[in-house]
Amino acid sequence: MTAKFIVIEGLEGAGKSTAMQICQQFLADKKIDFINTREPGGTPMAEALRTLVKNQYEEEVAGETELLIMYAARAQLLHNVIRPSLAANKWVLGDRHDMSSQAYQGGGRGLPQATLNSLSDIVLQGLKPDLTLYLDISPEVGLSRARGRGELDRIELEAIEFFEKTRSRYLALAESDENCVVINAEQAMDKVHADILAALENFYQQVNL
Amino acid sequence: MTAKFIVIEGLEGAGKSTAMQICQQFLADKKIDFINTREPGGTPMAEALRTLVKNQYEEEVAGETELLIMYAARAQLLHNVIRPSLAANKWVLGDRHDMSSQAYQGGGRGLPQATLNSLSDIVLQGLKPDLTLYLDISPEVGLSRARGRGELDRIELEAIEFFEKTRSRYLALAESDENCVVINAEQAMDKVHADILAALENFYQQVNL
Repeated sequence: MTAKFIVIEGLEGAGKSTAMQICQQFLADKKIDFINTREPGGTPMAEALRTLVKNQYEEEVAGETELLIMYAARAQLLHNVIRPSLAANKWVLGDRHDMSSQAYQGGGRGLPQATLNSLSDIVLQGLKPDLTLYLDISPEVGLSRARGRGELDRIELEAIEFFEKTRSRYLALAESDENCVVINAEQAMDKVHADILAALENFYQQVNL
Repeated sequence: MTAKFIVIEGLEGAGKSTAMQICQQFLADKKIDFINTREPGGTPMAEALRTLVKNQYEEEVAGETELLIMYAARAQLLHNVIRPSLAANKWVLGDRHDMSSQAYQGGGRGLPQATLNSLSDIVLQGLKPDLTLYLDISPEVGLSRARGRGELDRIELEAIEFFEKTRSRYLALAESDENCVVINAEQAMDKVHADILAALENFYQQVNL
């Protein structure tokens, strides 16, 4: 079995960290060698870009600037972590990946699809996750959870409409991606947990044939 | 007369700072209202990107990462400085612009032309300098001058072949750009100075008809 690339996606407060832990435990139970990544970030230079893009500035941040920084960080992570890991037959478990840019900068910010397609082509060069778990939650519920955790960054401080548009794009992307499973993240914790495990077990059975 | 966008380009040690001063004096003598920019940089966020891209990391920096950071900084400068300035009828005098990415990342790093074209389309949206002064110098001469100035950054530490390829691309770009004037920057200082002034005066006469 070749190494697989699994990604967790969702709005702030959807429960991505918990989902990451469930995936980690699942892979460990299956004796699968894997690494964790997060985006933007995951390498020293990409983490510096993460800090930079989440900071607040005394100037407007252009939508294209934000998008290009996300893809710069992604290019670095792909080059130094994701591709080498998969080549060494280690699975990759990612906290966010390309779908976040499509949803936040494409859906939320309304940047043109042609722009997103060009950048995806340049940076991903055809690589796509083998499994994406999209944790679906309404912005109201997600943001109230996220706010409970502490200070919000520049992007998390956007108006609710931004996150509504981001969620709509997430749902449209999930529907058109046969490798994506939508998890209802507004359910009780044990039900969310069970749905994630079921999706992982189903994926594992398929790729382990 | 609408505001114009003038750019100084060239390798390290070509004399861009001196050329900027000559241009500033020229514009002041003509009573033209103008601002100065530099790339990458020129806004708080773009300057943070400049620092980040010139730093050295304990990891390889992917060519696409470097390129995307350059365009992220350019998008920010265009959005917050260059376009507003031209719209307010202030001339813009730039220390480097798009031709640097074409020459360094396209020529020097060998990134595909299609990648550069996509990013130029996304970020520039058709804007191009009204006049570019390309200061042509051999890497040997330029780098020996630059090294005399002190510590070199990550990009300046590349091998000589990188700068040879960058210069070749600069020359090819200059030849195909009717708004670009090539200045022989290996001449004696007063001759370089005179050539820059002649190019500026010629440009001014043309746009001031």
